[in-house]
Amino acid sequence: MKDITQEALRSASFNQLQELCEEIRGEILRTVSVRGGHLASNLGVVELTVALHRIFDFPKDKLIFDVGHQCYPHKLLSGRGDRFATLRTRGGISGFPKRTESAYDSYDTGHAGTALSAALGIAKARDLKREDFQVIALIGDGSFNNGLIYEALNSLKLLQTRILILLNDNGMSISPTVGGTHEVLEELKEGSAPLEDVRLFERYGLRYMGVYAGNDLESLLPALEEAKEHLQRESVLLHVITKKGQGHAFCEQAPDLTHGVTPGKKGEEYATALGEELIALARRDERIVAVTAAMTDALGLRQFFNQFPARSFDVGICEEHASVLAAGLAAGGMKPYYAIYSTFLQRAFDEIIHDVCGQNLPVTFCIDRAGVAGADGETHQGVFDLSYLAFIPNLTIAIPKNIAEFRLMLRMSAAYPAPFAIRYPRGGNEGEAKPLEFGKFELLHSNMSDIIIYAAGERCLALAERVCKRAAAEGLPTPTLVNARFLKPLDEEMLRSRPEKYVITVEDNALIGGLGDAIARCLRGQGKEVMSFGFGDAFIPHGDARALFEEFGPNEEAMVARIRECHARG
Amino acid sequence: MKDITQEALRSASFNQLQELCEEIRGEILRTVSVRGGHLASNLGVVELTVALHRIFDFPKDKLIFDVGHQCYPHKLLSGRGDRFATLRTRGGISGFPKRTESAYDSYDTGHAGTALSAALGIAKARDLKREDFQVIALIGDGSFNNGLIYEALNSLKLLQTRILILLNDNGMSISPTVGGTHEVLEELKEGSAPLEDVRLFERYGLRYMGVYAGNDLESLLPALEEAKEHLQRESVLLHVITKKGQGHAFCEQAPDLTHGVTPGKKGEEYATALGEELIALARRDERIVAVTAAMTDALGLRQFFNQFPARSFDVGICEEHASVLAAGLAAGGMKPYYAIYSTFLQRAFDEIIHDVCGQNLPVTFCIDRAGVAGADGETHQGVFDLSYLAFIPNLTIAIPKNIAEFRLMLRMSAAYPAPFAIRYPRGGNEGEAKPLEFGKFELLHSNMSDIIIYAAGERCLALAERVCKRAAAEGLPTPTLVNARFLKPLDEEMLRSRPEKYVITVEDNALIGGLGDAIARCLRGQGKEVMSFGFGDAFIPHGDARALFEEFGPNEEAMVARIRECHARG
Repeated sequence: MKDITQEALRSASFNQLQELCEEIRGEILRTVSVRGGHLASNLGVVELTVALHRIFDFPKDKLIFDVGHQCYPHKLLSGRGDRFATLRTRGGISGFPKRTESAYDSYDTGHAGTALSAALGIAKARDLKREDFQVIALIGDGSFNNGLIYEALNSLKLLQTRILILLNDNGMSISPTVGGTHEVLEELKEGSAPLEDVRLFERYGLRYMGVYAGNDLESLLPALEEAKEHLQRESVLLHVITKKGQGHAFCEQAPDLTHGVTPGKKGEEYATALGEELIALARRDERIVAVTAAMTDALGLRQFFNQFPARSFDVGICEEHASVLAAGLAAGGMKPYYAIYSTFLQRAFDEIIHDVCGQNLPVTFCIDRAGVAGADGETHQGVFDLSYLAFIPNLTIAIPKNIAEFRLMLRMSAAYPAPFAIRYPRGGNEGEAKPLEFGKFELLHSNMSDIIIYAAGERCLALAERVCKRAAAEGLPTPTLVNARFLKPLDEEMLRSRPEKYVITVEDNALIGGLGDAIARCLRGQGKEVMSFGFGDAFIPHGDARALFEEFGPNEEAMVARIRECHARG
Repeated sequence: MKDITQEALRSASFNQLQELCEEIRGEILRTVSVRGGHLASNLGVVELTVALHRIFDFPKDKLIFDVGHQCYPHKLLSGRGDRFATLRTRGGISGFPKRTESAYDSYDTGHAGTALSAALGIAKARDLKREDFQVIALIGDGSFNNGLIYEALNSLKLLQTRILILLNDNGMSISPTVGGTHEVLEELKEGSAPLEDVRLFERYGLRYMGVYAGNDLESLLPALEEAKEHLQRESVLLHVITKKGQGHAFCEQAPDLTHGVTPGKKGEEYATALGEELIALARRDERIVAVTAAMTDALGLRQFFNQFPARSFDVGICEEHASVLAAGLAAGGMKPYYAIYSTFLQRAFDEIIHDVCGQNLPVTFCIDRAGVAGADGETHQGVFDLSYLAFIPNLTIAIPKNIAEFRLMLRMSAAYPAPFAIRYPRGGNEGEAKPLEFGKFELLHSNMSDIIIYAAGERCLALAERVCKRAAAEGLPTPTLVNARFLKPLDEEMLRSRPEKYVITVEDNALIGGLGDAIARCLRGQGKEVMSFGFGDAFIPHGDARALFEEFGPNEEAMVARIRECHARG
């Protein structure tokens, strides 16, 4: 799309602005159909973003997106139209705000609930430096469930600064928004809200300006003008009603299905297996319940929720609450399965320690999107979970080699009376699995070589198999290969009894604090040489998941070279 | 104190109940004056707890304490009077609720904001199992600032269960409670609140029963009876006004100073140095600001707050918001210092990754109470921070050997344009320090031995010095000793160039993922033998900090034995 200057945007006629909106919509549809990405949420905020760029003065004024699923129109209006077709590709435009990408991106986001706190910080810095610009936080109604938003609201008066909050209310998180706050917002929209709901925001030092039609420039432009005027004196909340998927028939009908779009056909999924197994387990065991934080579909739990509504808890984008709720359910005698993405579980880190493992409660964490997640980039990669879980006492950590083994791990956890974590990637293959023994690795093939590879998870085992084949093809000894399916408890017995001198570890996690460190710790003083392959000490950008794994993850060439080297040294 | 049976409590006259309250107060004062502990908060809830035990049927009914600073009277009323004098000592009564200690303790706490989510989980489990008992969450007004409480409130209607929330409002966190929610509560108390504030709670599915005098049994007993009645049909919020320190003149006057009591005289403190250095730095650098989450005094920042009120931010018990606010301030060009206890920083784990380090923003984390914190037990030990920080890209991690070196690290961080963490224990010695070089260890004494010790932090260096002296006294070679003051970046140059074959590492952190693992990783393939000493894979209970360090931490005898062994092997 051709870039439009701020001057052109300012002097455009109303009709031209409407045409611009259609142009933006067309560009987003075209690009997302090829590159994938967040579709419905971005289509919903086209008019709002055009109006913001007309009224405010970016990048002098700062626009902060909560989560960032709504930043495409902003990118198209801030000099990135010509590169927008590279969306979510390696080196191309990120699907999320990125300060390193443009001066128009004021704050990086990806997880929910941070925009208000960040906006307050930037506004307060402005005040202290006696600068003069506006700070705007664009926050979806789904994020308004998140505790961080309330912590920030609570300190709004205290901080004595001025910001504009745009509550972009489309009634959806990724799933439909749930909970008490959502009900308040619904009543405000319907005009049926009693005065006290409006005052709810005012109590926190916000002027609630009322409800505006967010897909209608005629409504938005004067509202933003008025808000800007008020901002001279006080913080303002503008409640904007948008339609997720606006302007695209299918998106409007199915905003949940078109929230995120992935091109290409879908294969087998761990998520699907999770749903199937939990249903089977729940039929036999009344204690089993499922907990999610606004991700029921993506985690494969829709069927479970339909079949066991009384035992299903989607608490909205509240990862911490979900974790403590699960701990409470377990303390009450239930057997909760808390399914969540690897990157979002970071939010519940303290609760895993303090509530679940500290009390040794039988909560099972089903950790999806582990390893490289791909096109969503830095804020969505799942390469830290082994590191942030490994040192927590009482926690079992399992890493299935395929979906069949994942099913066995779920069944094992159902009978296990303590905290249990299973981490797995998107995608996957069903494969086959032999019976599982708690805390025991699986010897996949044993050879008369002095080299042994311990690999964890489907991607790394596939890589290790390729490396073994290449070694054989080169006439090198084929290493012995082990499925290192428990990070904790570690199979110390096997590790210490294997005769191989050269040990290679492979994982799709950060090398610091991961499987390689655990194996090396176990083998200290045993005269072994351990070399570990995994992700280095850097944030992994967006791009194709497979390509990112090759570029930043355990390196095939380096592994083959290591085998050559070990062989040469004998 | 003599135990009282539930029957005796039920049949006691009003006067006898009042006498019981005085007896409980006396016992708490006696014990805390010897053992230390949370004084003012516990004195405030004596009548409330007696009334709860009179009206409800524990342990069938479940009482869940938020944080747990208010559980002493409950312990005295649930068969633990005879052992109460062992409070906070190793093997004695814990200062916090502990399921393993008594059936009357329904849920373990220590961090803020978990009680409501936990109560909902336990209540929901009760409903699913068709059991019949009441679930009560006792939550201080300070915790009502915490985001977790709002996440739980938001799902209260959704979960369709019934609980009683006792909002114990004493106007204090550890410091006075701050923020918008606090203002609402204040107006409710004063009776000046408009109807809409009452409705605030009702919107979330709670019957707000009104304000009650929480140190007056005549007010409490009928209120709890009424609440119990309502609980048959709906969730209830009882707003109870208590006086922190009630019944003790000095505590009533200085509830902040008597929140936590430590017997014995105070020595030098890293916290004091933090305040002094930040004031000095802030005088020269206008960008420097301080952020805390309701712990201004304990962290040594009171003077800073007094001198630079516009650059000081205490946001209440909101560790996550504080972290993102700091990130926002840094994005806006400021240089924030976020001071927090090691254990509470766990709450901001995702924000350290997502907001601070993901954007490489110059926030300095001043991490107090690192290592064994002591008498507060499992939920307060700071033995995980090195493990949960080590793998985060862009983060510098420094560990001072004494207070003098801590001052140098603070000055270094002030000039450093990226995230910086400094972790240090309570207490400490000023000592002396040589100029600091970024990412470089300090060689303390070099000997012609084949053994080298890398130790981090004051306690571990003192231990290492003792071990060296004992080795010398035994006629063993004295190991070379290194102050391993940067976990990240690690001094790889020194590590790889030192000639010693035997490497010993010492840290007061969990061994998994800590300094030892980092050093061993760096030395892989170098033909060294690394043995690490630190904390094992278990939660550390309450007790005397020094004794816990000896029992669970790096072991002096084992270190000397290792030196003997290395010497024998040559």
